Amino acid sequence: MLTDTALREAFSHFPQGVVLVAAEIDGVRHGLVASTFTVGVSLVPPLVSVAVQHSSRTWPALREHGHLGITVLGDRQRGITRQLAGPDRERRFEGLDVEVDEHGALVLRDAPAWMTVRLHDEVRAGDHDLALLEVLAIDSSPAAEAMVFHRSRFKGLIEGDVAC
Amino acid sequence: MLTDTALREAFSHFPQGVVLVAAEIDGVRHGLVASTFTVGVSLVPPLVSVAVQHSSRTWPALREHGHLGITVLGDRQRGITRQLAGPDRERRFEGLDVEVDEHGALVLRDAPAWMTVRLHDEVRAGDHDLALLEVLAIDSSPAAEAMVFHRSRFKGLIEGDVAC
Repeated sequence: MLTDTALREAFSHFPQGVVLVAAEIDGVRHGLVASTFTVGVSLVPPLVSVAVQHSSRTWPALREHGHLGITVLGDRQRGITRQLAGPDRERRFEGLDVEVDEHGALVLRDAPAWMTVRLHDEVRAGDHDLALLEVLAIDSSPAAEAMVFHRSRFKGLIEGDVAC
Repeated sequence: MLTDTALREAFSHFPQGVVLVAAEIDGVRHGLVASTFTVGVSLVPPLVSVAVQHSSRTWPALREHGHLGITVLGDRQRGITRQLAGPDRERRFEGLDVEVDEHGALVLRDAPAWMTVRLHDEVRAGDHDLALLEVLAIDSSPAAEAMVFHRSRFKGLIEGDVAC
């Protein structure tokens, strides 16, 4: 029987990178943290995707704005990821070093990679919406260590054997 | 300028889990390795997604078959991942310990997680097709170490600080 608990447990064995999708709209910062992000969905045009729950209260504003920043969260963001994903939406960006472009796309500084995107298409996928986003600009910082979410924990990456 | 090279370089900073999508069809084993897989695209119904290039010669057979196995590749599969993704399609499964269900869904043993899925929907996404797959059964092996593809290398995961 494919219960919700069994499904979440099994899904947790797939390591996923974590991103912040964010924009500043009319002076207010909106952002959501997602572990359902994928790069390389297409190269021509350059597309990435993210799945967002229908119940999200943040996604409608971001979708409507259409011009968004995506930050790939790394080891330096480990301590603030839970704040960014927290229930108090007013406090999500408190004390954070952000960069906002002229169209409101918001990214964090000191992250492994960041990009600005615009909504390309959206597909209903069960209890989520799957957004296809076209990459307008992208950059990365090789010095910033990566991070993944795996078995309900944030983890770093290591080359070679796992044991160390 | 968003060149193909710049795009691939920046995308490589996003760590991605790697899966094998496979089936045995009329006695022949077909499989492709993808780093564009995402779990938790939906919970009700349980959906996962994978993006496959239009140029793939394997995907048309898998799509047509519709009933597929997905194996989350882990540290134990590190040595065989390049074989599974290799150009010689006849040799991709050579010497591997596989399990095939009565509908032909093929998974590898000793992996962190595996599932059987059926095609739920498919969306054209630029130069790829984005397949939404419904999870029919799923299981995992907590003892199997995870693996991600990051900056063109396969890496293990580590808890706590990255340096060790």
